[in-house]
Amino acid sequence: MMKKLAMKRRSTRTYKNNPVKISDIIEVIEVGTYAPSGANVQPWRFMIIDDKSVKMTIRQGAEKADQKFHREAPEWLRNWLKDHNITPEKRFLTEAPFLVVVMALKSMPYWLESTWISIAYMILTIEEKGLSSLTYTPSQTDFLNPLLDIPKDYNVVTILPIGFSNEKSESKPMRKNVAQFVFKNKFGEEFL
Amino acid sequence: MMKKLAMKRRSTRTYKNNPVKISDIIEVIEVGTYAPSGANVQPWRFMIIDDKSVKMTIRQGAEKADQKFHREAPEWLRNWLKDHNITPEKRFLTEAPFLVVVMALKSMPYWLESTWISIAYMILTIEEKGLSSLTYTPSQTDFLNPLLDIPKDYNVVTILPIGFSNEKSESKPMRKNVAQFVFKNKFGEEFL
Repeated sequence: MMKKLAMKRRSTRTYKNNPVKISDIIEVIEVGTYAPSGANVQPWRFMIIDDKSVKMTIRQGAEKADQKFHREAPEWLRNWLKDHNITPEKRFLTEAPFLVVVMALKSMPYWLESTWISIAYMILTIEEKGLSSLTYTPSQTDFLNPLLDIPKDYNVVTILPIGFSNEKSESKPMRKNVAQFVFKNKFGEEFL
Repeated sequence: MMKKLAMKRRSTRTYKNNPVKISDIIEVIEVGTYAPSGANVQPWRFMIIDDKSVKMTIRQGAEKADQKFHREAPEWLRNWLKDHNITPEKRFLTEAPFLVVVMALKSMPYWLESTWISIAYMILTIEEKGLSSLTYTPSQTDFLNPLLDIPKDYNVVTILPIGFSNEKSESKPMRKNVAQFVFKNKFGEEFL
C-alpha cells in the first residue's frame, strides 16, 4: 500500500479550480502532526491559506525570489528547469484552492528534519485522498515572515499547494533502479 | 490508512533478535527511492549493515559523539532525555538485526530535505511490514565517513535500526492536538 501510494504521487504544478473540503486539509495536517520529532518537541506549525489576495501576495514574493534563483542556478540545473518547463512563474500558488504554509520553530533540535518527516506524511495523505500537491520552497523565504505575521523564531519550511491535479499528461515516475542506491556494509559495494 | 499507520508507529529503542528478511529491508529502501527530490536528483544512498563488527564500531563512535552532546545539552533537553531513559548508550545499534545508514550527496539542491522525505517514506513502510525503527542521527556524523568508506561529498543523514520491537510497554502517541498547530491566513489566528 505504501509502495502504491508512493509510486502514484506526482509533483503537481497545475490545479483545477474544483473546490476542496477544508476538513480534508485539516485531516492532512493532523496526519502530519503524528510524525516523530526531535525530543518530541513537535516544532511544526501550519497555516492554511484560502484568501485569494494573500495567495497573490505570496506568489508575487516567491516569483521575485525565484527570478534571482533561476538567474544564478548552475547550468545543469537551468537545463533541468527548462526541460521541465519550470520558470519563475508560480501559477500554482494562486491556482490551487488551498496553500498550506509549513513553518517550524528553528531553535528546536532537529527542527528541519522533523518537519520534513511531517511534510512527507502530509504529501502521502494528500495522495491517499485523491488530491495532489507539490513541496515548493521558494529559494528565499524571509519575505513570508512579515507578510504572514510569522514571528522571527519560525522559519517557513515549505509551501504545499493542494488541489485536484490538472496536469495534461501523467508523467512517469522517472526513478533510477533501487540497486543503484544500495550498498552493503561498505560504500561502493553494490550487491543487488 | 495513512492516519492509522502514522498513529501506530513508535520510535523504538529495544529490538528482539528475531531475524528480519533482507528482502523486506530492500523493499523499504525501494519505497524510499520513490520520494520526490529537488530537480529529481535522487541524492540519497543507503547502506545496509548486518555485519556485527561493523555495527559495533558504529555504536562505539556514536556513543562517543553523544556523550559530548548529552553533557552540553540545555537543561530542558537533559531533563527530557532523562525522563525518557535516553542515555549516550546506543544498544539498538548492535541489537537491531539491520541498520540502514542513509546518506546524501550534499552538493545537490535540497539534498537534506529530499532525503528526509525519503526517510519518512521508509519509516512508514517499516511500520506497514510490522517492523519497527528509529530515526537516529548521532550528534556528529563525520566519523562514519572513513569508517564506512563514504566519500566526503556524502553526508550521513540518519541511521535507521530496523527489527521487531521489544519495547516493554506500548507508549502513547503524546501529540498535542492539531488545533494547537493550525492558523488560517495569518499567524496566531487559531480557528479550529
